[in-house]
Amino acid sequence: MDAKLLLVDEVRLTPILISDPPLLNVQGVHQPFTPRLVVEVVTRGGVVGLGETYGDGVYLETARSLAETLPGRAVTHVNSLFEPAAQDAMGAGSGPGAARAAAGASDPAAGAGVDASGLRGVRTAAKLRLSVVSAFETACLDALGKTLGLPVHALLGGKVRDSVEYSAYLFHRWAAHPGADGPADDWGAALDPAGVVAQARRFARTYGFRSFKLKGGVFEPEREIAAIRALAEAFPGHPLRLDPNGAWSVETSLAVARALEDVLEYLEDPASGTAAMAEVAAGTGVPLATNMCVTTFEEIPEAFARGAVRIVLCDHHYWGGLHRTRELAALCRTYGVGLSMHSNTHLGISLAAMTQVAATLPGLTHASDTHYPWQTEDVVTPRPVFRGGRLPVSDAPGLGVELDRPALAALHRRWLDDDGRMRDRDDTAAMRAADPAWRPRRW
Amino acid sequence: MDAKLLLVDEVRLTPILISDPPLLNVQGVHQPFTPRLVVEVVTRGGVVGLGETYGDGVYLETARSLAETLPGRAVTHVNSLFEPAAQDAMGAGSGPGAARAAAGASDPAAGAGVDASGLRGVRTAAKLRLSVVSAFETACLDALGKTLGLPVHALLGGKVRDSVEYSAYLFHRWAAHPGADGPADDWGAALDPAGVVAQARRFARTYGFRSFKLKGGVFEPEREIAAIRALAEAFPGHPLRLDPNGAWSVETSLAVARALEDVLEYLEDPASGTAAMAEVAAGTGVPLATNMCVTTFEEIPEAFARGAVRIVLCDHHYWGGLHRTRELAALCRTYGVGLSMHSNTHLGISLAAMTQVAATLPGLTHASDTHYPWQTEDVVTPRPVFRGGRLPVSDAPGLGVELDRPALAALHRRWLDDDGRMRDRDDTAAMRAADPAWRPRRW
Repeated sequence: MDAKLLLVDEVRLTPILISDPPLLNVQGVHQPFTPRLVVEVVTRGGVVGLGETYGDGVYLETARSLAETLPGRAVTHVNSLFEPAAQDAMGAGSGPGAARAAAGASDPAAGAGVDASGLRGVRTAAKLRLSVVSAFETACLDALGKTLGLPVHALLGGKVRDSVEYSAYLFHRWAAHPGADGPADDWGAALDPAGVVAQARRFARTYGFRSFKLKGGVFEPEREIAAIRALAEAFPGHPLRLDPNGAWSVETSLAVARALEDVLEYLEDPASGTAAMAEVAAGTGVPLATNMCVTTFEEIPEAFARGAVRIVLCDHHYWGGLHRTRELAALCRTYGVGLSMHSNTHLGISLAAMTQVAATLPGLTHASDTHYPWQTEDVVTPRPVFRGGRLPVSDAPGLGVELDRPALAALHRRWLDDDGRMRDRDDTAAMRAADPAWRPRRW
Repeated sequence: MDAKLLLVDEVRLTPILISDPPLLNVQGVHQPFTPRLVVEVVTRGGVVGLGETYGDGVYLETARSLAETLPGRAVTHVNSLFEPAAQDAMGAGSGPGAARAAAGASDPAAGAGVDASGLRGVRTAAKLRLSVVSAFETACLDALGKTLGLPVHALLGGKVRDSVEYSAYLFHRWAAHPGADGPADDWGAALDPAGVVAQARRFARTYGFRSFKLKGGVFEPEREIAAIRALAEAFPGHPLRLDPNGAWSVETSLAVARALEDVLEYLEDPASGTAAMAEVAAGTGVPLATNMCVTTFEEIPEAFARGAVRIVLCDHHYWGGLHRTRELAALCRTYGVGLSMHSNTHLGISLAAMTQVAATLPGLTHASDTHYPWQTEDVVTPRPVFRGGRLPVSDAPGLGVELDRPALAALHRRWLDDDGRMRDRDDTAAMRAADPAWRPRRW
């Protein structure tokens, strides 16, 4: 093969807005539309590789800086996405967003986005960069796989399973977004234990999920304990998880753990920060999981040394791509820490990437999270379908998904037409649109 | 591409005996000939991938069991070499060697080999398996790369450097093997500081090495301290290392560290075991390196927690291949531990594999070890040449080396003709052939 065919010719960045239901969390409520960024890496051979990541302004500007450094590089050389040249280009971007990314958590504008500032621990420029690199790495691997006729998992050492199990991601939610212009669905409201169980039954019936995760931190802990108890009664013996995104004190966390110790598979980020998590872990036999206090390699040594977590939820968007996800998995295996997979609102490109890398991880000890069933729109075709709670691992070239260009164009048009209110996800602002006095609560 | 072309059609195992000079270490002296195993993985597409590992009987028998499981598998699927099916086949092999491998350290016959029992920490069946898997993984990656027209480094995320630095590996040695039938060379003896410096000068002149490692544990520590002092005088400012393979007590280790703290880049395995290494580390500012107390992922947590080592010497033969070497590197990066590369007697296939994986490791903080300049024979052509202490990273397909079949046949003939004395490396037996009363010493 002519090596020149693997050189990057062009990078296309397409910010989009996708419909999102009114799902509740500790930060507020999902907006009617949420931004995502679709990355296309086009090789000189004319092959298009796909990646997907967060689409908020700071991510977009960082992506624009990185995109400039790619033409002329080989799609095989994903390790060098982490090298100084690429990092400098990203850190030194001249756009306003790049400056905000560099400023990181100290910048109020940058800190407002829910993904990195709230549900993902402290937002830093390094974390933003890794989320952007992840989409470029995925797109390079997709392009490489398509060029070679190999699935992405084969570029990661090959699959060790033929399907990947996912869990149902249950949310307290409203029936509809406030106001008249939001997207609608037929799920109805779920604001009490009965509503949560009804939602779980539909997930189980439609997709065959066996594991259930409830997003917590929305109501007082007693109500969320009751919801888990109701799930345990409706689905005896099924793995159940509760995730309040660090909304509880150590005392509350321990009280919830005591109340649910006989039914929980794990408790996810009950308290905020490694110190508090370690304190909770010391006081309960319920395994603690995290996608908040361990989201970078730098955070691992202290958390593992303190026994703060027994399961890490990997997320290729957080960790810098599929190769880095495999490295995280190796760290977890080495330290006897379990592995599950985190998900934030995402489309079919990311779901395919999650499935491809998950297929290669021998130590994936728990069903993976996915928001995907909540998304009514996608940019790939055909849309993936969960059966028996699982997705088959595609052996088609690359990620095994095809871009739906009309759909992409329509979602990009929505982004272009937006007045700026939706281009940065802000669950707190969305909640305050309904209730101006609302504040995130802690228990 | 037709995926069937990537299926393994046949595996060829060729045990060989290669000439080795009379190099001294704590276990004795290198035999005149040492066993290696050349692995050829042949795909249905007719492509031959190469791997190389230890050739002692227990490795060979383990390799024979694994080889039976490969036909029909894809060379892309190296992750599954670690899965139960392959492991069961290896552990349950019916040959006497497989049984010995499973018996591990408790079997005196298995414990006699110097590589795993002496210089590599406690020998276990798992370590043997990983060393065998490493050769199969390398051969699969070589076959895959040759099929695709891509270098192995591109299958590991791509190189981050164009050449890899190696260090001169200095040994106290005799001018010739005892007896009349051993292979000869023109290096002469090196049994005192002047001899070591002369050897180093020839290495520097011929290959351009800038870093120097002296194998220690041969003479009393004062004599080895004097050798390092002489090197420091001859090569001021150059990185110097001393490796007695755990031959010293904590007190001796600390005394040597004090005597050489101004000139050592690092001290490698001065004492034996993680506890002793941690004690030494606590008492000196000289960085400690290891390829003995950290040789498997299982050994990492305790060693890192106790601060026993500041540099790990990776070795794809130990850790299970090139992917696992990259995972080890990620662990070291995460825990702030430096990375260098270990070498045991090896030929050009392994050197090519070392260079390919080293090229992909951003955190390779020290020049890599290699015994290669001591080997007068090889099974690849043309032989690699060190210039400026470095090897260029090949961008040719696969490992970038070609098998020299006449040379392989001749070295295999030597193995066939051997009366059994050389087929298992035993440095102690070789030393006792010269001095029947010799015993390994400790200081």
